[in-house]
Amino acid sequence: MTSLGGLRAVTSAYTVSIHYDRRLYRQDIAGSIAHARMLAKQGIITSEDAAAITQGLREIEREIEDGKFAWRPELEDIHMNVENRLHEKIGDAAGRLHTARSRNDQIALDIRMFVKDAIGEVLAAILDLRTSLVGQAESNADAVMPGYTHVQRAQPVLFAHHMLAYFEMLGRDAARFRQAFDRADVMPLGSGALAGLPYPIDREFVARELGFSRISRNSMDAVADRDFLIDFQSAAAICMMHISRLAEELVLWSSDEFAFLRISEEYTTGSSIMPQKRNPDFAELARGKTGRVYGGLTALLTLMKGLPLTYNRDMQEDKEGFFDTYDTLFATLQIFADMVAKMSIMPYRMREAARGSYVLATDIADYLVNKGMPFREAHGVVARLSRYAVDRGVQFEQLSLDEYRQFSTLLDEDALEISVDSSVAARDVPGGTAFTRINQAVADAKAELEAENDG
Amino acid sequence: MTSLGGLRAVTSAYTVSIHYDRRLYRQDIAGSIAHARMLAKQGIITSEDAAAITQGLREIEREIEDGKFAWRPELEDIHMNVENRLHEKIGDAAGRLHTARSRNDQIALDIRMFVKDAIGEVLAAILDLRTSLVGQAESNADAVMPGYTHVQRAQPVLFAHHMLAYFEMLGRDAARFRQAFDRADVMPLGSGALAGLPYPIDREFVARELGFSRISRNSMDAVADRDFLIDFQSAAAICMMHISRLAEELVLWSSDEFAFLRISEEYTTGSSIMPQKRNPDFAELARGKTGRVYGGLTALLTLMKGLPLTYNRDMQEDKEGFFDTYDTLFATLQIFADMVAKMSIMPYRMREAARGSYVLATDIADYLVNKGMPFREAHGVVARLSRYAVDRGVQFEQLSLDEYRQFSTLLDEDALEISVDSSVAARDVPGGTAFTRINQAVADAKAELEAENDG
Amino acid sequence: MTSLGGLRAVTSAYTVSIHYDRRLYRQDIAGSIAHARMLAKQGIITSEDAAAITQGLREIEREIEDGKFAWRPELEDIHMNVENRLHEKIGDAAGRLHTARSRNDQIALDIRMFVKDAIGEVLAAILDLRTSLVGQAESNADAVMPGYTHVQRAQPVLFAHHMLAYFEMLGRDAARFRQAFDRADVMPLGSGALAGLPYPIDREFVARELGFSRISRNSMDAVADRDFLIDFQSAAAICMMHISRLAEELVLWSSDEFAFLRISEEYTTGSSIMPQKRNPDFAELARGKTGRVYGGLTALLTLMKGLPLTYNRDMQEDKEGFFDTYDTLFATLQIFADMVAKMSIMPYRMREAARGSYVLATDIADYLVNKGMPFREAHGVVARLSRYAVDRGVQFEQLSLDEYRQFSTLLDEDALEISVDSSVAARDVPGGTAFTRINQAVADAKAELEAENDG
Amino acid sequence: MTSLGGLRAVTSAYTVSIHYDRRLYRQDIAGSIAHARMLAKQGIITSEDAAAITQGLREIEREIEDGKFAWRPELEDIHMNVENRLHEKIGDAAGRLHTARSRNDQIALDIRMFVKDAIGEVLAAILDLRTSLVGQAESNADAVMPGYTHVQRAQPVLFAHHMLAYFEMLGRDAARFRQAFDRADVMPLGSGALAGLPYPIDREFVARELGFSRISRNSMDAVADRDFLIDFQSAAAICMMHISRLAEELVLWSSDEFAFLRISEEYTTGSSIMPQKRNPDFAELARGKTGRVYGGLTALLTLMKGLPLTYNRDMQEDKEGFFDTYDTLFATLQIFADMVAKMSIMPYRMREAARGSYVLATDIADYLVNKGMPFREAHGVVARLSRYAVDRGVQFEQLSLDEYRQFSTLLDEDALEISVDSSVAARDVPGGTAFTRINQAVADAKAELEAENDG
Repeated sequence: MTSLGGLRAVTSAYTVSIHYDRRLYRQDIAGSIAHARMLAKQGIITSEDAAAITQGLREIEREIEDGKFAWRPELEDIHMNVENRLHEKIGDAAGRLHTARSRNDQIALDIRMFVKDAIGEVLAAILDLRTSLVGQAESNADAVMPGYTHVQRAQPVLFAHHMLAYFEMLGRDAARFRQAFDRADVMPLGSGALAGLPYPIDREFVARELGFSRISRNSMDAVADRDFLIDFQSAAAICMMHISRLAEELVLWSSDEFAFLRISEEYTTGSSIMPQKRNPDFAELARGKTGRVYGGLTALLTLMKGLPLTYNRDMQEDKEGFFDTYDTLFATLQIFADMVAKMSIMPYRMREAARGSYVLATDIADYLVNKGMPFREAHGVVARLSRYAVDRGVQFEQLSLDEYRQFSTLLDEDALEISVDSSVAARDVPGGTAFTRINQAVADAKAELEAENDG
Repeated sequence: MTSLGGLRAVTSAYTVSIHYDRRLYRQDIAGSIAHARMLAKQGIITSEDAAAITQGLREIEREIEDGKFAWRPELEDIHMNVENRLHEKIGDAAGRLHTARSRNDQIALDIRMFVKDAIGEVLAAILDLRTSLVGQAESNADAVMPGYTHVQRAQPVLFAHHMLAYFEMLGRDAARFRQAFDRADVMPLGSGALAGLPYPIDREFVARELGFSRISRNSMDAVADRDFLIDFQSAAAICMMHISRLAEELVLWSSDEFAFLRISEEYTTGSSIMPQKRNPDFAELARGKTGRVYGGLTALLTLMKGLPLTYNRDMQEDKEGFFDTYDTLFATLQIFADMVAKMSIMPYRMREAARGSYVLATDIADYLVNKGMPFREAHGVVARLSRYAVDRGVQFEQLSLDEYRQFSTLLDEDALEISVDSSVAARDVPGGTAFTRINQAVADAKAELEAENDG
Repeated sequence: MTSLGGLRAVTSAYTVSIHYDRRLYRQDIAGSIAHARMLAKQGIITSEDAAAITQGLREIEREIEDGKFAWRPELEDIHMNVENRLHEKIGDAAGRLHTARSRNDQIALDIRMFVKDAIGEVLAAILDLRTSLVGQAESNADAVMPGYTHVQRAQPVLFAHHMLAYFEMLGRDAARFRQAFDRADVMPLGSGALAGLPYPIDREFVARELGFSRISRNSMDAVADRDFLIDFQSAAAICMMHISRLAEELVLWSSDEFAFLRISEEYTTGSSIMPQKRNPDFAELARGKTGRVYGGLTALLTLMKGLPLTYNRDMQEDKEGFFDTYDTLFATLQIFADMVAKMSIMPYRMREAARGSYVLATDIADYLVNKGMPFREAHGVVARLSRYAVDRGVQFEQLSLDEYRQFSTLLDEDALEISVDSSVAARDVPGGTAFTRINQAVADAKAELEAENDG
Repeated sequence: MTSLGGLRAVTSAYTVSIHYDRRLYRQDIAGSIAHARMLAKQGIITSEDAAAITQGLREIEREIEDGKFAWRPELEDIHMNVENRLHEKIGDAAGRLHTARSRNDQIALDIRMFVKDAIGEVLAAILDLRTSLVGQAESNADAVMPGYTHVQRAQPVLFAHHMLAYFEMLGRDAARFRQAFDRADVMPLGSGALAGLPYPIDREFVARELGFSRISRNSMDAVADRDFLIDFQSAAAICMMHISRLAEELVLWSSDEFAFLRISEEYTTGSSIMPQKRNPDFAELARGKTGRVYGGLTALLTLMKGLPLTYNRDMQEDKEGFFDTYDTLFATLQIFADMVAKMSIMPYRMREAARGSYVLATDIADYLVNKGMPFREAHGVVARLSRYAVDRGVQFEQLSLDEYRQFSTLLDEDALEISVDSSVAARDVPGGTAFTRINQAVADAKAELEAENDG
């Protein structure tokens, strides 16, 4: 059996949240100040009390930021730590702050404010990463690489095209986080424990003071709802999934076998005795941390499943996972923004790879179709031509025109000019890999980023 | 060792998708018709070929809908089944349909169209369930019940208030699905296998034909992206979580211990020899199916993790889970819409429960605060009063005014009038449980539903 | 853009593990001592060096335990922190400790040792909880309660029977953890970075020194394998699932509606002004923490998915989730062991509930079957009888013999004696709820616990 | 609103399980026959009835296996379909079969029997895959390849060593499934609905008849427990994780960049016009299906979370996910057993890759240590040597002895003989990659497989 003392420590620790919810101090204090002002405005407490409360809370905020605040685990959470200190500072007036408020709507307020701030940070970091992706696209505008399906070389594409694919993914991520912001942007204070409050409060005033665009419409929902955290976790999971794909590509591309790029030294770890070795540790860690973020989403969905209304103590478990997800995602985005900006492309290796593996076969087929041959027939011709080349162990460019024409007399001199570059150039459709299209896409992307930076 | 024949069956079945992707037939055919029309308009194929293709595909659609189409598993998927049949019908022209198209952009198109349709159905079902919730709120406008925290009675609330909390949750679900719709509403055809196509195609035309609001901007992303399915699965997971909470409450409320309501016979199963027994099977199944929908989200996130661009065969596994989630969610919403509409409330039991357990203690404290007593002091008074009542085993209403005034002389005659009804009435703030507020909320909800029905 | 300084902090923090892997210090040091001894025994290093290393490591262990060790985050992990300090203490000899060892096999060793210790603690806590369950069963040997299906009263059972169901579940949990122990009990040192080592080491000696029962058989597997952590997480997830079921029952049973038991004050939180209110916070938190443990399992499975051999830096992410799961599970078990031991049953309320709701209907049917009536016919008779009682709003016990015999003349005087107690007594089969069976089950359970305590 | 007819279809389908639980027919019938025999043996029904029941059930089994059984969805599940048909066949005696049995213990019995059978199949398929792995190891006994960490070449290893790493993983999987078997191997019949039964039944007899090694000890647990399904799902998730790692390696190794092996044609799909292209579709699908199996585990854990005892209808949702996991895992194992057996290794490419990238640096350091140089100093020497080689763009083997000795005079003639082969040979420790060790490991593996085949 656990010793009595040991058990008491375990028991106390089980309910305590101050080690993580202290991160909400700024939101908690701002929320309390707005509440106190409203109470005074409505005549529920005196202006003097409100002033004392505001003054005291401001001081507490400074104490915390200066590292001088004495956190007390036995007071369990951020609310009680602040409230207790306020009482030490201003006496009984502190007690009036709790008028027309409950822990249930207070914590809902604090987290919503924190989530809104967190999304602001995440959006900025996504913007940085998108900027780095466009930067790489622009700096390596003429780099051609193999486009892959099934990790098999399929068709030549521009490296810039590949970078912009991630630009698109992260654009969707940003949209998702903006929508999550909108759902978090609902002011719950005034919901009381669950039923609303028997005081003439002004909820719209509090919302305005705290920068919320609207107030909650149902007090029971307001204290029982954690959708806005799931929205965040879900958007984070998808964003980390995108990053895990990029991470996988960085790992592959920096292997000896691909050797398409080098990650800068600060984002690799080496081996003193194998000086060329650069382990892509940051890319790997990001890929691994995807699991952690998925786990956070699983945890919160599981937690909320089947909970009857309204508040249940289970819901205290909502925050730690969220903080972890936020920290993980934010750090990962910042690191990738810098790592992507600093990685060095090896265009020669990419182009070499793009030239191998008969990836131009479809271009020859398209050539024939454009000369009037039905699609399926053209495919047959090229299949035989490719087989001929494979059997001889040569690439298309090593065949003569005579050899070509054994397979179809529609193949003329210009068929010999089919190349990685002509293949890229030919894909001149919206979204396609042609130089002009990608140049335009880079320009559009830059304009989009600029607009966001201004916005 | 598996026998050779057995193994061949296993191997064939492993890659086949026709048993589930045949559900995409309508989208596949509509996509192909739009594609053929575009090819003809652009002069890539002849009008005659386009007409034959269109005509043939229309016939195939009819065959499928009449149950006369001979599905062939050995052709593996919906595309090949349709393509093959088209060839039987119109010969070589069928081969031209595949010009300027790849399986990769074709399947992306089909699923996006299906998802858009599916979301339309889900939104309609959410609307129905929200209508039922408002209906119950309106029909039982004066039913008072205990509001719970921690499954402990906390404060009296209106049953209508409780129903409207779910109305809010489902409103957020609808918003999430509309956003998922918007992300699915991107036309990918023209992306080819991954790099775009070397034909003078008109992607905007195809988008307009098929009712898409825009085209994809990056062909590599277009064939590698399954975000729109994760958006659906994620929205579905949250929606099922909400339903699991309602289901839990229906299970509890229809127990002998709560006895707040009866679920109609068609949504319960009984026992022939225990005639009063009504097992809430549908509510339980819905609660259980929440796991299945969570599992579908986990599966898709896992599947996409770390996949390099662009298409990988892993992604074939995206559809079955999605179909299962869609079917599960859609059926659950339809059933709950009907089950909620038909359940019978037992307002007397609810009110009895709301009167017990000293839930009016906070009202007495608020009474004192309104008479000028500081909040913390008022709490102390009521704590002593409650303890007095508990020790005597009586409820507040059984105490005399003299007994009340032993604890505070601020307690006057009107303190005796504090009741479940006065408690509810007092919470007269936006979002609060007061009759007037909830009546207004019901009216607002109905207006919202009407607007959506029209919209 | 993040400031340069800010970014550097983010980057450094991303790879650092010392804030959590310092928990491995005891294992790391023990492993190093055993390794040094083996190196000396094999003549790979001198006895003097081995002695200095051992001595230095012992001192470091004491420094850590006395809180005097200066942890240095810039050294990133536990290995480098210890190694660096050892160098400060004993100079160059410290460098020889790393002979014939790699970080990859060293960390595998440390975690395996920690997991084995952790399982020991978990098994002890499971034993405590099982002891409490048996204690409650024994102390309330005659308490009869309704057994539920679908949260509907179904048949009377002994409360002890219900407690022992959890005893069974936790017995399976213990078995699972013992099997996880066995899979962790494999000594990986000597695998080097991945390929084994070119030194005449004695791996069996190290295994014996450290209490392992066997050594790993394949060095590549040894450094790439984290199964033993997934085994732990998986066993923990199932165990928390069991606890979540018990938690749910404690929440329901301590509600006003059930009122079957009271959780002791130290495991509830009250409301000062609602003195009878006892929120079952610990039960709720445990139920909520189930999500966290599920999330940890999801995270680790996701992390390992698709990783090529051998070590990848992703795998550094294996530990934090494991520590969190271990801490969560261990604390939860300890708390439940004490909370279950201290909860007060209210047998009167239980028995009252067991008598309602026509739960004896099946007993009457069984009575008829025992008198020779076919099963289906007996069911029909009781269905009609029950309907008769329900229509009159009475329980069976309020019917007269004459009324009974209107439905079947096989019903004699002794049919009137069918009661909650006779119903329980009749279920006299192995595993059944009869008093004698449960008494025996309690005795068996106590013997099992005693054997484990000795073993 | 859904039409009434449409709704009825949805409602009916929601509770029906016959489309998947019919797979349990053999178990259901065997269980019923054993039950009937026991009832007759105990004198609870007549021998004539038992004989009629047995005979009827045997016929039904044959009808099902001959595809002649008319499944009726409106009868919902396997039990009612069989029971109803039995009644058609033998009349009232069929009704007696349900004596002393409940759906709750019956379904628990059926699934347990099915799980035991399923595990038998899975174990056989694991054995096959392990046999293929050993076969590849043996056939390519001298193939040397680079061992990787971080997808960077690290040290030369034997390909056989790499294959045997998977042999180890799958050995643990087999152990896990055997333990899952043991937990499923508990006979629940006789538990009734939840409380046991009031009949003189002989549970041990039924267990013996059905090949169970023991009976359940607590009837409430017996009907509320689904651990054995989670054990299966959890073991399957880990096993699929292992396979996803192998799949990832097959995908990489069959890429143009690695080109270490070719997967046989039947397990790839090609492109008619790119004849050398072999997309590793089966490996990719298996990797993708890992998500599906993880999802099944998530689903079941979620489903069981927080369910009060005993049976709840949620639990009907346990089977479909299990069947899907079983089918997925079993097919994947069978396919991998064959695909691994048939893949062609390209030892020349492997060896070439093993020689590049300065992977012998650690061997040179070990050479110096063996000559007496302290480990850290040796590392310094080799670091300088490697830098020298990298700067000149040469591999170690291209350096002269004079150049070597500029870095340390301990480097003698024999240092020039350090090679991929000497490196492999030197790792001559248990678990190491030396030829002799791996030869022994192959022999041990074959002995283990043989023992299992016999066992």
